[in-house]
Amino acid sequence: MWKKFLCALCGIELPMRKSPAPTVDIIIIHPKKGVVLVKRKFPPLGWALPGGFVDYGESVEKAAVREAREETSLHVQLRELLGVYSDPARDARRHTISTVFIALTDFPEEIHGGDDAAQAVFFPLSALPEPLAFDHATILEDFIQRRAGDYGL
Amino acid sequence: MWKKFLCALCGIELPMRKSPAPTVDIIIIHPKKGVVLVKRKFPPLGWALPGGFVDYGESVEKAAVREAREETSLHVQLRELLGVYSDPARDARRHTISTVFIALTDFPEEIHGGDDAAQAVFFPLSALPEPLAFDHATILEDFIQRRAGDYGL
Repeated sequence: MWKKFLCALCGIELPMRKSPAPTVDIIIIHPKKGVVLVKRKFPPLGWALPGGFVDYGESVEKAAVREAREETSLHVQLRELLGVYSDPARDARRHTISTVFIALTDFPEEIHGGDDAAQAVFFPLSALPEPLAFDHATILEDFIQRRAGDYGL
Repeated sequence: MWKKFLCALCGIELPMRKSPAPTVDIIIIHPKKGVVLVKRKFPPLGWALPGGFVDYGESVEKAAVREAREETSLHVQLRELLGVYSDPARDARRHTISTVFIALTDFPEEIHGGDDAAQAVFFPLSALPEPLAFDHATILEDFIQRRAGDYGL
């Protein structure tokens, strides 16, 4: 799909493809503490998985480690891909495609909210806050159904 | 990363984020025939997995079914996600992030190249053509190592 972009100043039509934006989200887990959620500083407000946009020239793996670090201060080791979430309605602001990883951290006590996250907190799976932003409740439900048991959660 | 885009006519700076482009590739398999590769009409020439860009407003699953249909004439049923391939060097033209699916088809005899594909052909895994475009040799190696056996290949 080639959407017509117009220059804001002169009105000329710019030949640019409008694509969904690639993002990453990270399920950071600790067998005793649960999963990390961040309290968002910007709309949509509320709790969400840490994550963000993939930069041009950056792999999804590097983006996931970087976003986890920026929003939670945690160094994480990616363990596996949970899935790719691309429903056009998953983010009301624009169409995004999120690659979702499961990750571990060796030093969970270093957790501290940063960047777009006002807070970063471990929650037990039995006491997740509601509502979660975006489709993150669905993502966590998939994680619980399919993978949580393998990580002692 | 906010890359500065300039309007070609008036030179004004346009506030657009430069992001990797989301794509899909599909490993269409048949237990007796192998996997489908397409001969590309446009550079980079050579053989490749069927695939293409995800449209704005389209899920990766819909994009995979659509691209398979356009390039091979096959109706496919997606079975599972193989992985997400996002090395910035995987496509020399620009940074793309490919979500790769494994798919089956009930009517393999309907195969016929179309759209960007001059030909579409089933190849046995033991006789894949070389070289394959992009990182598709890596993707197929991952498929062979991890999943081919489960599909009788």
